[in-house]
Amino acid sequence: MHKIEHIGIAVQDLEEAEERWKKLLNTLSYKRETVESEGVITSFFKIGESKIELLAPTRPDSPIQKFLDKKGEGIHHIAFDVNDIEVKMKILAQQGFILINDQPKKGADKKKVAFLHPKSTGGVLIELCQDL
Amino acid sequence: MHKIEHIGIAVQDLEEAEERWKKLLNTLSYKRETVESEGVITSFFKIGESKIELLAPTRPDSPIQKFLDKKGEGIHHIAFDVNDIEVKMKILAQQGFILINDQPKKGADKKKVAFLHPKSTGGVLIELCQDL
Repeated sequence: MHKIEHIGIAVQDLEEAEERWKKLLNTLSYKRETVESEGVITSFFKIGESKIELLAPTRPDSPIQKFLDKKGEGIHHIAFDVNDIEVKMKILAQQGFILINDQPKKGADKKKVAFLHPKSTGGVLIELCQDL
Repeated sequence: MHKIEHIGIAVQDLEEAEERWKKLLNTLSYKRETVESEGVITSFFKIGESKIELLAPTRPDSPIQKFLDKKGEGIHHIAFDVNDIEVKMKILAQQGFILINDQPKKGADKKKVAFLHPKSTGGVLIELCQDL
């Protein structure tokens, strides 16, 4: 892992959150992208070598809506950039980390992604991601 | 704000957490620092231009212990690097963000820091920090 690729933040209202983060970071969201398989619409802001990824639900059974219902708005996950996601997944599994995905799946922003279960990472949902 | 300075992660057992993050990031903690006024011991890992800051309580009435009792281990805050913390605090206050601190205070890692209240940021505890 060589940088924080992004921090994912769960929000209920994407436009309101974009307005807030525009003020915080003094920059505009540079793209929105829907990941229909996850029931999520994302909005990205650049900050240094990293990004802030806002995540809003597109339907009531979206995993992000479940997160919002349970925990409210706030930080959802940290994503780290990796060079070879399959190798990194294998190493982390051997070290005792629990992978939510057996294989990388297609995420937003032209990435292959895989998640580590928070129960194996001290309560932090961690995403590994690699450019497609 | 021009980069993510660090992500703060609340942990109950610092040594166990350092072992976990050593495996995740494939690097060692490069320093520990106690901030007695906050009742916290911190441990830092480099990741690209940013850091992971582990936060463990040093006493039962520590704010971090209260966070752990209420929410469990996990992501505590995001810190952004700013050039002029007093100016940035003034601008954000004018934009409606709620500052927890009227004036910057001394944080870990030779920084002046100030926090924005999560109720004004969509549930995200945000730290502004500037090198001393």
